[in-house]
Amino acid sequence: MTGTVDPAAASCPVPLVETERVLLGHGSGGQLSAELIRDVIVPALGAAAAGGVLQDAAVVALPASAALRSGAVVISTDSFVVSPLVFPGGDIGSLAVHGTVNDLAMRGAVPIALTAALVIEEGMPIETLRAIVTSMGVAAAACGVTIVAGDTKVVGRGAADQMFVTTAGVGCLLDGAQIGADRVQARDAVLLSGPIGLHGTTVLSVREGLGFESAITSDSQPLHRLVAEMVAAGGADVHALRDPTRGGLASALNEIAAASRVAVLLDESALPVPAEVAAACDLFGLDPLHVANEGCLVAFVAPRSVAKVLAAMRSVAAGTAAGQVGTVTAGPAGRVAMTTMVGVSRVVDMLVGEALPRIC
Amino acid sequence: MTGTVDPAAASCPVPLVETERVLLGHGSGGQLSAELIRDVIVPALGAAAAGGVLQDAAVVALPASAALRSGAVVISTDSFVVSPLVFPGGDIGSLAVHGTVNDLAMRGAVPIALTAALVIEEGMPIETLRAIVTSMGVAAAACGVTIVAGDTKVVGRGAADQMFVTTAGVGCLLDGAQIGADRVQARDAVLLSGPIGLHGTTVLSVREGLGFESAITSDSQPLHRLVAEMVAAGGADVHALRDPTRGGLASALNEIAAASRVAVLLDESALPVPAEVAAACDLFGLDPLHVANEGCLVAFVAPRSVAKVLAAMRSVAAGTAAGQVGTVTAGPAGRVAMTTMVGVSRVVDMLVGEALPRIC
Repeated sequence: MTGTVDPAAASCPVPLVETERVLLGHGSGGQLSAELIRDVIVPALGAAAAGGVLQDAAVVALPASAALRSGAVVISTDSFVVSPLVFPGGDIGSLAVHGTVNDLAMRGAVPIALTAALVIEEGMPIETLRAIVTSMGVAAAACGVTIVAGDTKVVGRGAADQMFVTTAGVGCLLDGAQIGADRVQARDAVLLSGPIGLHGTTVLSVREGLGFESAITSDSQPLHRLVAEMVAAGGADVHALRDPTRGGLASALNEIAAASRVAVLLDESALPVPAEVAAACDLFGLDPLHVANEGCLVAFVAPRSVAKVLAAMRSVAAGTAAGQVGTVTAGPAGRVAMTTMVGVSRVVDMLVGEALPRIC
Repeated sequence: MTGTVDPAAASCPVPLVETERVLLGHGSGGQLSAELIRDVIVPALGAAAAGGVLQDAAVVALPASAALRSGAVVISTDSFVVSPLVFPGGDIGSLAVHGTVNDLAMRGAVPIALTAALVIEEGMPIETLRAIVTSMGVAAAACGVTIVAGDTKVVGRGAADQMFVTTAGVGCLLDGAQIGADRVQARDAVLLSGPIGLHGTTVLSVREGLGFESAITSDSQPLHRLVAEMVAAGGADVHALRDPTRGGLASALNEIAAASRVAVLLDESALPVPAEVAAACDLFGLDPLHVANEGCLVAFVAPRSVAKVLAAMRSVAAGTAAGQVGTVTAGPAGRVAMTTMVGVSRVVDMLVGEALPRIC
């Protein structure tokens, strides 16, 4: 080899792997942007990258299916700013996919396509970006949804904290779904699909280095298949759905109680609060009812369909621990209360202030 | 009044105006989040806020019209990180609306609904937020589109630079549109709807305090009505459309030339570069072909329809200055060149590196 130069090697452009960190130029819209998308983002998304290119805008065919309503779509969006980017049970990439899929599902929609917009701080390691986008791709593929359009912006050091991800989603309504926060009626059962408080306490524990993270894991998971089973079983008797993310179960219940002008009475003894969540909440002075969840839902279901819907929920992995946690009463409109373990009733307010910033 | 208390005044909750600045709690998902959306964001959006509430997800009816294709939607997303937030001719709010409307339009779609996700730095003045969101509402209403779903996250001081806005859009395809970056053919005319370089040089001038901003204004404007007229006039002869944003006209042309495996020859004498843009570019060592635009488009049109399409473009406010700036030739595939004023030909490359960070 001495004294010779391989012409192919000599003409090899500088590969991205040698750059190692995201540069401002990766957000320029020019050559480096094209390389970042072609060499890092699209390969990392894998099968979830529709057509192998992420475009500014994409045409998406709406599925023609008797199970889906035509003539309307459901649209949602969420920005994710969770810190740290990676936590037990997920990362900002999978969280973004699950969060948007779940927003669609809570309106009774089947997700069809997602978009992903990244705001990246200059200097972020390319490997970290690749890992996050890979996680997005794996999560999207597991949800059966493609990421059809995207955008990447890079801001200077100090102008953002590593990375923010904004996803938007489009879905089609399940035929038979009639779901709305204002459709709840007195005597509806309040069903919960799984334990509460896991996501918020997990992220907090990692951030504060408390060691709880060895025992708890975020519940981040998609809920659209659970919802499809619930609607198939209960039809229009499934009145309202909500995934209690920021603000926790308490805030979700207060919003729905206000929108439907009903009261909600929870039964504390029926509320699934894992022991580790209770311990972490004790330590931080948090109420598990105010802690964010990313993989459970609360449902308001007419009494005659409760048994059917609960059975349907328990048939799906995301709902094996489903149970009834409360009942809707006629009033006073908008009040959420809870019968505590010791038999007294206390009011359950919305979260005021902010106990857990950047939890999602 | 002395010695008496008006009960109504005494029970008045603390209004947001006294808070004056965005708090972490405004992103909590609880009470403060609900107040920010109800008291600031929804009123500021005005008529553009669909139904008076911004939800996590919204059902959007697809218009049934002979002019629109059914069975498919077009989806796009963009994050906006422009600095400063306000510049002559627009702000991050109107820019976000126009940018997403234009991404849809470039695929031949009529915008139906937008989503808006805000990432706000703690401490941002509420008045600034209100002004930006008001601008979004005005821009959306002027485009004839509603903002149907939204999200607000707040990060601590120093974790973002004031505010980032991510919009996503859903649109329906114009019947008769057959637009794609890979549909360009040899002999197509390259049409440009208006002058180039205004957005990038305007933002740069404000940021650097150069004083050019008295003479130049961003071209930020929606282009969907222009596109509708072009498709009505030219139908399937309108082969490709692109709004040359980040990376400028040069990057847009290079992408399309590569996708369609054709060459493009620009005529420098036909390129509309305003004198102030040329002066600013001289000062910064920028090529006007690499500077971002937010209110013009480049179109590739079959020769037989050029006259009709140009006439249609000139009938719309956004296209009064439209003209032909180049021609497609058979090859070499992907090469963009320009015949300069002095009669020689030079290659027009994509932008490499980043001359103008945070321009949109």
